[in-house]
Amino acid sequence: MTRTVVESKTRTAIIGFDQPFCVIGERINPTGRKILNEELERGDFSRVEADAIAQVAAGATVLDINSGAVFSNKMAEDPRYADNNFVEPELMRQLVECVQKVVDVPLCIDSSVPGALENGLAAAEGRPLLNSVTGEEERMELVLPLVKKYNVPVVAISNDDTGISEDPEVRFAVAKKIVERAADFGIPAHDIVVDPLVMPIGAMATAGHQVFTLVRRLREELGVNTTCGASNISFGLPNRHGINNAFLPMAMGAGMTSAIMNPVALPINAAKIAEKKQQVEAAGIILREDMDDETFVTLFGMGSTKPRAGKEMEAIRAANLLTNHDDGGAAWIAFNKPAGEAGGGAGGRRGGRRRRA
Amino acid sequence: MTRTVVESKTRTAIIGFDQPFCVIGERINPTGRKILNEELERGDFSRVEADAIAQVAAGATVLDINSGAVFSNKMAEDPRYADNNFVEPELMRQLVECVQKVVDVPLCIDSSVPGALENGLAAAEGRPLLNSVTGEEERMELVLPLVKKYNVPVVAISNDDTGISEDPEVRFAVAKKIVERAADFGIPAHDIVVDPLVMPIGAMATAGHQVFTLVRRLREELGVNTTCGASNISFGLPNRHGINNAFLPMAMGAGMTSAIMNPVALPINAAKIAEKKQQVEAAGIILREDMDDETFVTLFGMGSTKPRAGKEMEAIRAANLLTNHDDGGAAWIAFNKPAGEAGGGAGGRRGGRRRRA
Repeated sequence: MTRTVVESKTRTAIIGFDQPFCVIGERINPTGRKILNEELERGDFSRVEADAIAQVAAGATVLDINSGAVFSNKMAEDPRYADNNFVEPELMRQLVECVQKVVDVPLCIDSSVPGALENGLAAAEGRPLLNSVTGEEERMELVLPLVKKYNVPVVAISNDDTGISEDPEVRFAVAKKIVERAADFGIPAHDIVVDPLVMPIGAMATAGHQVFTLVRRLREELGVNTTCGASNISFGLPNRHGINNAFLPMAMGAGMTSAIMNPVALPINAAKIAEKKQQVEAAGIILREDMDDETFVTLFGMGSTKPRAGKEMEAIRAANLLTNHDDGGAAWIAFNKPAGEAGGGAGGRRGGRRRRA
Repeated sequence: MTRTVVESKTRTAIIGFDQPFCVIGERINPTGRKILNEELERGDFSRVEADAIAQVAAGATVLDINSGAVFSNKMAEDPRYADNNFVEPELMRQLVECVQKVVDVPLCIDSSVPGALENGLAAAEGRPLLNSVTGEEERMELVLPLVKKYNVPVVAISNDDTGISEDPEVRFAVAKKIVERAADFGIPAHDIVVDPLVMPIGAMATAGHQVFTLVRRLREELGVNTTCGASNISFGLPNRHGINNAFLPMAMGAGMTSAIMNPVALPINAAKIAEKKQQVEAAGIILREDMDDETFVTLFGMGSTKPRAGKEMEAIRAANLLTNHDDGGAAWIAFNKPAGEAGGGAGGRRGGRRRRA
């Protein structure tokens, strides 16, 4: 039974064949998040704190910390900011320290910049997961010594110097090469979590088959845990959540043991509320003027203005039950208790849901 | 590539390894449906018609017709009605004729009574599916000759004279025995759709594993299609839909090719509407007096007063996409078109959605 042990100062998350699925929260990542990126440039970490807390409350048991920000304003004043080797190491340290102040789950240190990886490893308490090594020669020679030095597990992405192959045989071979190279460094297979790379199903009709087959082979032939950027599968298609909600249980059925994903449902924003109020008024409904937004969205079945667990978390918890990782359904029953009762919407038998601050 | 061909007078549904999942609508079944049972006793078939139309609209491509009614009032007047061998054959004929008048999908003739099976086979146009044979000696000797005589495919349930085994090895052996006995009658394996029997996960923690493993073995070793009573898996647990929505994609990932299930979401009933109106009033909201129920439930995000496809159908359509049975996602895109646009909520590339009447 392969187990990858990831630790914070006080908590352990195990990625393993005999464990409930490990949800690695992906939200602390400025890539593609313009507002977060601007806030980080101004030194404002409030959204990072809020995202850390919300993801853990929704069921993430590990948080990914990605320092890939682009500080365009600072760059204009000081050209050193154009170099991510300058920006990311310091930012990574700040992000790790910030997140560790508000939650106590283990972290996943995520950067393309070696200095940021090293700073993250130094700043993280416990035994973080490192994200990532690839099959590229240069990357292996840079990252694997860090993995060995800090005795941490690492995410291994199955692309190499030739890029990302569309042939699953090649991606398997790349993963195998990384596992073998790691062994040369004295790193055991159980400390490698392979990401077989998920292609968008809208662009490649066999993308699902590929992942499910690769996950099974990686597990059976290499004995490694697996992860993926789960939402890639639905890229470019309508109702992405509908696809993700089916993909995750299917991947778990094939043996996948973790995913890097957003566990939080998008809260209803002011624009959506304004639009609905117009509809409601047009239908001749008169609201109390002092009605607050949360009461409004709850009554009108819109969800919540507050972050909460997304439907993917329901799918994962159901699949935990169906893969026999929720004995007697205790976690499922706790998760489905009506709001207000203890455990409502945030059940589960592993830790990580208690705040520290 | 195993294909089981089921036909109505004008339509073909194929259960097959290379096909989208086949949804067999289960609603036309008086067992456990008190109101329907009473209506049938009075000769009122209006609900049967409505259920047939709603299930096909929601995406069922085959409809199960179960004649297992209990006519307690008639029994009091005429003791012959205490015998299902008296009740079911005539009822089955009426049900089949009724359903064939309003929809044109192939049927699945479902009864424990041999006379009802024979009447159903005689009344059904095309090539219906027969439900079911088991591994019980008497049942095989009764049903397999009918299967041969009418040249129809049959559902084979993996229990025998010793009952339902909790050991999946035994259930596999029973399925194998039925396939072999059928061969003695000249019935090919591709005309046998095995139901490996789904146990409730709340009572048996390995129930998911069992089914997924059995489905894969039945497919690989016996080359047969598979089906199941999908909702059994969630019996006794909260949020059954949440479990079913994960189970179906996982079963499809393991190779299951059909399910007997309810494709229709429960419409919002008058009691739910009244309860919500009380909440709404208590919150100080004033409704227009002439607001109709459908406008109310739509505005308040409750769903619909009309039957519509359930979330399970979304999960199945997503899993069709992920198992490469929806080239380019055309069916998924059509299914997810906003209501009002052509194809909204009822897309799919197979037939059965057009009404005949």
